Formats: sequence, C-alpha cells, structure tokens
Amino acid sequence: MACEFYWISGSPLAWRVHLALEYKGVPYRSFRLNASEGEHLTPEFLELNPRGRVPVLRDGATVIYESVAVLAYLELLQPEPRLFGSSHAETGHIWQRVQEIENYARNPFLHVSIAILSGEIEEKQDAIRELLDLCREQLDWIENILTNSQWISGEAISAADLVLYPVLMIYLRAIGNPAAEKHGFATSDFTNQWPATAQWAKEIEKLPGYSQTYPPHWSI
Amino acid sequence: MACEFYWISGSPLAWRVHLALEYKGVPYRSFRLNASEGEHLTPEFLELNPRGRVPVLRDGATVIYESVAVLAYLELLQPEPRLFGSSHAETGHIWQRVQEIENYARNPFLHVSIAILSGEIEEKQDAIRELLDLCREQLDWIENILTNSQWISGEAISAADLVLYPVLMIYLRAIGNPAAEKHGFATSDFTNQWPATAQWAKEIEKLPGYSQTYPPHWSI
Repeated sequence: MACEFYWISGSPLAWRVHLALEYKGVPYRSFRLNASEGEHLTPEFLELNPRGRVPVLRDGATVIYESVAVLAYLELLQPEPRLFGSSHAETGHIWQRVQEIENYARNPFLHVSIAILSGEIEEKQDAIRELLDLCREQLDWIENILTNSQWISGEAISAADLVLYPVLMIYLRAIGNPAAEKHGFATSDFTNQWPATAQWAKEIEKLPGYSQTYPPHWSI
Repeated sequence: MACEFYWISGSPLAWRVHLALEYKGVPYRSFRLNASEGEHLTPEFLELNPRGRVPVLRDGATVIYESVAVLAYLELLQPEPRLFGSSHAETGHIWQRVQEIENYARNPFLHVSIAILSGEIEEKQDAIRELLDLCREQLDWIENILTNSQWISGEAISAADLVLYPVLMIYLRAIGNPAAEKHGFATSDFTNQWPATAQWAKEIEKLPGYSQTYPPHWSI
C-alpha cells in the first residue's frame, strides 16, 4: 500500500520529505493542502497531526510527523538508496550534520524568510539585518564543508543534504524578492561568494524526480 | 576499546548521553571538562568539536558531537537495551517525539534556565515571565502524554525520555533557585500540577547507573 504524504507548496520542511520520497522511489499518494484555505487545520488533518503542520506521512496505521523523523522512518521503510549511510561512523556523522543544521542553520534561514515574506519588511528591517548576518555565517560554514567534500556529510548524498537544501532555497527566494532587493538585502553575488554551495545546489537539482518536488506555486 | 565521553557538569545536553551510556552499559572513559577554566576551548578539544561544546563521543577514529546524533550512534554501537524501538513504527514515533522535544520544548526550558542562572534575573524578568508561559505549555503537553502512556513514546523507555529529562531537570533547578523564588518564578506545586511528569522523573531516577550521571556540582 502506498504511503500518504501531506504537504503544503513552499513548505521547506515538507520539501525535505518530498525529495526523500522521490530519491528513494517510495510509492506515495500526494495530498497537497491549501494553507490559505486552512486545509491544515481541519478536524481530519488535526487528527493526523495535532500541531496542524506538514509534512505528515501515513503508512497504513502508522502516522509520523516532524520532517527529520519522517526521513528516519523512510530509511527503515526502504533502505536503498541510503540516506543515513552504511557504516556506524557514516550514520553517526550524518546525524551530527542533520542536528547541526537543525540547531544552528535552520532558524536563521527560516526566520529571515518569514520576516521578508510576511509583508512586514519595513517594520522588521533591523531584525532582518541581524538575521542576515547569522545566515551569512551559516553559509560560510556550509561553504567550508562543501569546499572539502562533495556533499554535506562525506562523498555521498545523505539526509543532511535533503534537510539543508529546502531551507536554503526559501532563503534565496526571500532575499531575491523585489521588496528585499529594494532594502539591499539581496546577495546578488551568491554564486561568487559561496561557489561550492551554489554548485552543490545544482547537483541536488539534477536528482531524478527533483522536478516533482519543486513547489508548484514557485513556478507560476 | 572504551569510548571517550567528554562532558561538563550540569550540561543538560551532555547529561542525555551520560544517561544513555549508563543505561546501555557501554564501556566509556569519562573526561569531565571544567568550563570555568575554559577546558572546552583548548586547541585539543576544539580539534574534537570546533564548536567547543559538549557532549563529544570519541570511539577510536570516529568523533561524534550533537547530543541526539551521539544517541543515534550509541544505538548502532550497542543495540541492546534499545533506545530507538524495535519496529519501524516504534522507531519512527520515537524520532518524532525526539524532534518535537528539540523543536518545541528544549529552547523554552533552556532559555529560562540560562536567564535565571546567568545572574541577570533582574534585567531579564519580563523575558523570563514570557518564557515561563511557554514552559508551562510544554509541561501540559508532556503531562498529557504521560497521563496516557508510561513513557514519552509508548510503553518502553526510549531516547525521547533521555532527551527530555535533563532539560526538564535544569529548568526545575533554575526556578527553584532562591533568586527565582524571590521573583515568584518558582512552581512550588510542580508535583500537584504535573503529577504524571513528576512520577515519570522518579522512574528515570531509578535507572541503574543514574547516580553516576547526576551533575556532581549539583550535589554540593
């Protein structure tokens, strides 16, 4: 029986799981929720996830939410191709990178994105400038990793890459927004300043099934 | 060869790993760092973890940091007794609870503890009051879980319990501090208000090896 995957277009946390489903070739039925119509807050959906958040994965009687937990579950459901390594050392290191991204990088990227895309850019500009400094520090950390290895954890793609990519993409989309450009928030020289990171993003975009995961409303 | 475990007395994130080492009976050599003497910032330690943070686990040539990643590594190193479940559904649900604690509960509890224990309680009292409201919401969430099951994820102890416990303990210690009591921050009725949570904490404290993990400077 195919899994049921619940997501919202443009949710970076759901995008992580979408990438993993496609990369692993796990059969799934897609349930795209329309957040502006409150479809993530219906009684039916709150029964799946009382927090009213995506992603949610239902596999028969098992329901899992929280994006990183869903990735761990998918690795058990369909181990190959692997996203959490083959040896103890590989798996431990991948988990370390996943937690580093969650604990240090995720919030600066998401908070700056939300602040810009919320339409309150004027009121929040001082906070945004502080967050942008944190984001640049994180980009330097990522660039250093990707200058020394092809992927975030060693020489094979892993969960760490899929955890980072969507969070970085929403950040780049936010700072490329015309209102953000007007305030000088845009980093027009992204590719020059963080070339290994830009190249890595291109490699992610070559993955089979990637285009299925691209947020539909971003293509309009 | 025994693992090397690097920790600081009273670090809730290191305490998680300490509990797991004792619970699993993994042989380890203990390296307690003295933070007030900067032992977490020596060149030798920064070579292990460039972030200068504990816990760090070294197992031969493998070095892992970030507490949750170390727990995942220990499960591979010594699977029994299990901390991440036996079935796919159990493992997925444990990971979900771990991520929920990390994403929603950990920071309110740690931030309020740091604010109280930093000695800036006077300046920060408004922020502390807001954080205390968040902490109480999280306690209600935990109490609801523990009213319906014996442990945080189902009917067996798991990584989710070990991830939560030290974070809750430092919070209780902080709000029980005399300066916090003076400001009315103390929740003297903890056991009455969250009885299932108080009972669960007592069960953790009965685990074999628990006393080895109790922060030494808290006993003074």
